[in-house]
Amino acid sequence: MPDIERIVIIGSGPAGWTAAIYAARANLNPVVYLGVPKQNPAPVLPGGQLMLTTEVENFPGFPEGVTGPEMMAMFQKQAERFGTRVAGEDITACDFSSKPFTLTTSNGENIKTHAVIIATGATANWLGLENELRLAQIGGGVSACAVCDGTLPMFRDQPLAVVGGGDSALEEASYLTKFASKVYIIHRRDELRASKAMQQRIFDAENAEVLWNKIPIDVLGDEKIESVHLKDTQTGEESTLDVMGLFIAIGHTPTTNFLEGTGIELTDKGYIALNQRGSFTNIDGVFAAGDVADADYRQAITAAGMGCQAALDAERWLAAQGIE
Amino acid sequence: MPDIERIVIIGSGPAGWTAAIYAARANLNPVVYLGVPKQNPAPVLPGGQLMLTTEVENFPGFPEGVTGPEMMAMFQKQAERFGTRVAGEDITACDFSSKPFTLTTSNGENIKTHAVIIATGATANWLGLENELRLAQIGGGVSACAVCDGTLPMFRDQPLAVVGGGDSALEEASYLTKFASKVYIIHRRDELRASKAMQQRIFDAENAEVLWNKIPIDVLGDEKIESVHLKDTQTGEESTLDVMGLFIAIGHTPTTNFLEGTGIELTDKGYIALNQRGSFTNIDGVFAAGDVADADYRQAITAAGMGCQAALDAERWLAAQGIE
Repeated sequence: MPDIERIVIIGSGPAGWTAAIYAARANLNPVVYLGVPKQNPAPVLPGGQLMLTTEVENFPGFPEGVTGPEMMAMFQKQAERFGTRVAGEDITACDFSSKPFTLTTSNGENIKTHAVIIATGATANWLGLENELRLAQIGGGVSACAVCDGTLPMFRDQPLAVVGGGDSALEEASYLTKFASKVYIIHRRDELRASKAMQQRIFDAENAEVLWNKIPIDVLGDEKIESVHLKDTQTGEESTLDVMGLFIAIGHTPTTNFLEGTGIELTDKGYIALNQRGSFTNIDGVFAAGDVADADYRQAITAAGMGCQAALDAERWLAAQGIE
Repeated sequence: MPDIERIVIIGSGPAGWTAAIYAARANLNPVVYLGVPKQNPAPVLPGGQLMLTTEVENFPGFPEGVTGPEMMAMFQKQAERFGTRVAGEDITACDFSSKPFTLTTSNGENIKTHAVIIATGATANWLGLENELRLAQIGGGVSACAVCDGTLPMFRDQPLAVVGGGDSALEEASYLTKFASKVYIIHRRDELRASKAMQQRIFDAENAEVLWNKIPIDVLGDEKIESVHLKDTQTGEESTLDVMGLFIAIGHTPTTNFLEGTGIELTDKGYIALNQRGSFTNIDGVFAAGDVADADYRQAITAAGMGCQAALDAERWLAAQGIE
């Protein structure tokens, strides 16, 4: 290990590995730290959110589809082929107050580095029900991304449910109406937070129906979801809704807690704020890529594109500093 | 064919096909027009600049590498799998002055469409020498992208030459100094246009040398480049430079000529100007993605990411207009 790293990449999803491929090919000798400590009940997984995805159909280059974990293994292999080092530990804290920067690992070690790419992603918020994550992980019809998974054959012409009431929940529901026989929107209150235009789209859709004042209290099914158990928030009455798919759309949490106190600027939604179109954060030498800095698209391919940008930005920045 | 298309994608490189994958999966029934008329001596190829690339090592998901044409065939297959229609003709003109928009094909047909994604790419500028494009197409050591190709084993520890004198030429040269035994910068004048900092980096590099007042007049080699024939612009003296690689870095031309008079706003470098971080152009309903709108990164993976963004932006925009 060099005394001072040229570039450390934090995160091992599409953004992190793509940054590593480009940084390694540019002879920057990058090291990838797989992750950071968990920040909420949802798992922060090495490999990112794709580790929860069984079938990826929309990453270009895989006409027959590929599983999320397979794809991440290929990305890692490609990064390692060009000399990327992979560290087993997490990064628990960052000090960007003086250069070179200091990063603390979960072993308590301090590493020095000239540049950092933050690619720690985001986690979908989950309800926290016992069967929910288990079914999501085995491809059992529970998902946190309608754009990613809604087109899968298992959901075609089936009754589906979306949990949530914000713009992105209704956007996911509207997207699903194109494929599903019926889309239920399970919402805990008696009005929606989403914009009026978005609400109107749902009210106009023939196969969409909002179930007001309901919360899911259980997800049923062994290999595949069969139904959702609901509770009325007003009357306490319980009911069962038969669905072949459940989409959780109650927001995402970008993985930024380990950055607290570092001075990195966040947007009002809590994502890392990027300057201009590139990957530059407000701190010189710190770059960000992928879902941790993207509230809008959150796709594997957009994250990968951002990872490439961050590596090229960092390479040019290091060269301009005279750091070879 | 519908009377009015929901979305037409112009261009068949990584941005166009990725936009098609996402648009098709969103049930927008997209049609892809492969290209537009040639605008300069360099070929505007269906499949884009990657059709000139033999080995792609930096697109994540291909740990063993892949050829450019193979990769584009996979992208197309994936887009077609989800129902993308592929049109054989070019788009020769666009009328964005009234909605729905009107596009004219090379058959003289007029198509109506609600939304358009422009993904027509850019072409590297070439010198126009007889052997230059031929050797580029067969992977014979001539390239217009050091970041793409400079790491290939064939260039390691070999003498290489870069043609050009701007910032990006010197950036490419500086990048190559990490791998090459020697990097010659062939420049037609006696001073460089690049920034002073960039010039200093080249002057400081032990294995870089600027050949002043020289222009290449021939590229020699059958299967692989062997040497470049040079002419001195001051004295007219001719000389031969033995190199194992030649990188042409005299700029790129974004493919926008077919947009003349449409009101689409371009940057001062001639690229399509994008609003905010997304793919929105100055005309409502017209989106752009890939190299035609990217002067900075120009990588297959960044273009693909932009294609995804454009499809998602267009999908949301169409839904907001009530166009299903």
